[in-house]
Amino acid sequence: MTTQPFRHVALIGLGLIASSISHALRRTGHDLRITGYARSAATRHRAAELGLCEVRDSAAEAAAGADLVILCVPMGAMEQVAREIAPVLTPGTVVSDVGSVKASVLEAVAPHMPTGVTFIPAHPIAGTEHSGPDAGFAELFDNRWCLITPSQDTNPAEIARLRVFWEELGARVDEMEAAHHDLVLAVTSHAPHLIAYTMVGVADDLRRVTNSEVIQYSAAGFRDFTRIAASDPTMWRDVFLTNKDATLEILGRFTEELFALQRAIRTGDGDMLHAYFTRTRAIRRSIVQAGQDTDAPDFGRHTRKSSR
Amino acid sequence: MTTQPFRHVALIGLGLIASSISHALRRTGHDLRITGYARSAATRHRAAELGLCEVRDSAAEAAAGADLVILCVPMGAMEQVAREIAPVLTPGTVVSDVGSVKASVLEAVAPHMPTGVTFIPAHPIAGTEHSGPDAGFAELFDNRWCLITPSQDTNPAEIARLRVFWEELGARVDEMEAAHHDLVLAVTSHAPHLIAYTMVGVADDLRRVTNSEVIQYSAAGFRDFTRIAASDPTMWRDVFLTNKDATLEILGRFTEELFALQRAIRTGDGDMLHAYFTRTRAIRRSIVQAGQDTDAPDFGRHTRKSSR
Ligand SMILES: NC(=O)c1ccc[n+]([C@@H]2O[C@H](COP(=O)([O-])OP(=O)(O)OC[C@H]3O[C@@H](n4cnc5c(N)ncnc54)[C@H](OP(=O)(O)O)[C@@H]3O)[C@@H](O)[C@H]2O)c1
Ligand SMILES: NC(=O)c1ccc[n+]([C@@H]2O[C@H](COP(=O)([O-])OP(=O)(O)OC[C@H]3O[C@@H](n4cnc5c(N)ncnc54)[C@H](OP(=O)(O)O)[C@@H]3O)[C@@H](O)[C@H]2O)c1
Repeated sequence: MTTQPFRHVALIGLGLIASSISHALRRTGHDLRITGYARSAATRHRAAELGLCEVRDSAAEAAAGADLVILCVPMGAMEQVAREIAPVLTPGTVVSDVGSVKASVLEAVAPHMPTGVTFIPAHPIAGTEHSGPDAGFAELFDNRWCLITPSQDTNPAEIARLRVFWEELGARVDEMEAAHHDLVLAVTSHAPHLIAYTMVGVADDLRRVTNSEVIQYSAAGFRDFTRIAASDPTMWRDVFLTNKDATLEILGRFTEELFALQRAIRTGDGDMLHAYFTRTRAIRRSIVQAGQDTDAPDFGRHTRKSSR
Repeated sequence: MTTQPFRHVALIGLGLIASSISHALRRTGHDLRITGYARSAATRHRAAELGLCEVRDSAAEAAAGADLVILCVPMGAMEQVAREIAPVLTPGTVVSDVGSVKASVLEAVAPHMPTGVTFIPAHPIAGTEHSGPDAGFAELFDNRWCLITPSQDTNPAEIARLRVFWEELGARVDEMEAAHHDLVLAVTSHAPHLIAYTMVGVADDLRRVTNSEVIQYSAAGFRDFTRIAASDPTMWRDVFLTNKDATLEILGRFTEELFALQRAIRTGDGDMLHAYFTRTRAIRRSIVQAGQDTDAPDFGRHTRKSSR
């Protein structure tokens, strides 16, 4: 086991991601101080009850004295929080975040950082549809990727420290440019979320099919969409507003492709459909092989007794 | 426990659904004969090895003497199979199916049925992304719905027998008109599948994002789409071609709604997005409450040690 590269970690925002960081940090067994702050008294109270961290009454108080400050708030709150903590940050401190969009967080946070303080954006590709301080668990980051998007002039030694930090939490770490990150995530996360929200909205809206029918017969595929579409509305509003261009680009491509498939259905082009559906299977196999999902049918929702 | 209303069940097609019916029938403990047939020698051989049924060399031989024949083949093969078994069917026999589309199966099968034979279409709303004789398991239908879509002149006593049959397999049974079934399933299954296939196709196509990036960073939502898009290409080609109108109608509504959300992103209308995402959450809660999915975060993919 390597040594934790930081002695005092401050978590600003105490929801799913921050509470998971806290649990995963405790799991390392390192002697380490964790302070934290969330906007509402209710969340702060609950975080204290759960023993997630030493809870403070402001972001600045939580950040004071920390050698790593992680911003774990929705994208839209990043700039305000950066302003609030700036006065207490001392040279040598690393500030990072866990936001789902990277180019905009760099713009929102970096200008507020005092000299000697390094801001390194990061994004753990791990989450669930639940949120809040109760939702976290130590295993969230295990075997998942954390993407770090430093700017070109960032001190490599500081990047290395943040890398070790995430590896200690169970993650694998990769580095890429912020703009490329935002395009990749538009594909693997942002567009799929918007599509799922849309499909669930359509189902909810359709007069001739009752909601109870939608609910009862959801096992045929729809319920997977509803899980995604149950994610936090504030977080997702902010993601789409801050990753506007890449999301709209991917949705444009999606619509084009959907029209081609609709045309194949309309004209009865079974060969085109069959070839398309065969190609998409290969991607699934690779994801299972890469350890990024289970091969159990239906995500293992069923208890299976018979052999396979 | 009620008594099995049939003494000899024939399964035409021996894939996921047929093998699950076989396992679930054995689980009831009733003394019951099961015969079966599949197109390829390989599948027939494997079905015999697994002890799914007494395997026969033609659909007609499998159906001979059965008092319930269930067609478990892709939608596009229903008519041919109906033709093949018609000569051996005797009065009093019930013929049913498990196809995902109901109006077209009625058209394809009913005209071939001899006098005295009742055809009652059925569709168990249960499945996984796997297929073939090895994919089945006894629990597949537990607590899932099976929709029966009899025509108006069907003898209620025969409907009642088929209802008991599916209840014995663990399912809950509901009746509706075939056309309404096809619209409901276009919403809960067919449109979501086409959308998932499309999104996975877009990801696979995009030059600026590599496939290895798509695969590694899939945990952010995309991997749920890939599971759906890993389903059998033949089955799904047939579903779209036989439920063309309802699928295209729902996809039309979907595109309309997607455009409205894209516009909200483009114009920065955060309130619209937030309200939309809040509404879709409620549907998820109802599905979990109705026992149609687990509330475990991320479908319980994670092993969780901390409390919640
Ligand atoms: N959920 C995921 O799947 C996921 C995955 C990867 C990255 N992320 C990113 O991680 C970040 C946090 O997401 P999460 O899922 O942990 O969200 P969450 O569970 O909703 O928690 C957000 C936390 O931020 C606090 N907060 C909001 N505005 C604040 C402000 N102005 N000052 C201080 N605290 C504030 C909230 O406090 P209150 O409770 O008092 O409102 C809450 O404790 C987001 O940027 C998101 O994009 C999320
Ligand atoms: N999978 C689901 O999620 C699901 C859920 C509900 C309903 N359904 C419906 O159930 C039906 C079967 O689906 P499944 O998932 O069980 O498919 P599957 O696992 O692919 O099995 C299909 C079976 O049909 C056989 N078959 C194909 N054409 C045939 C023909 N002309 N004559 C005789 N046998 C033939 C195949 O034989 P070979 O193996 O020799 O090719 C195979 O054994 C479809 O109509 C589907 O719409 C599926």
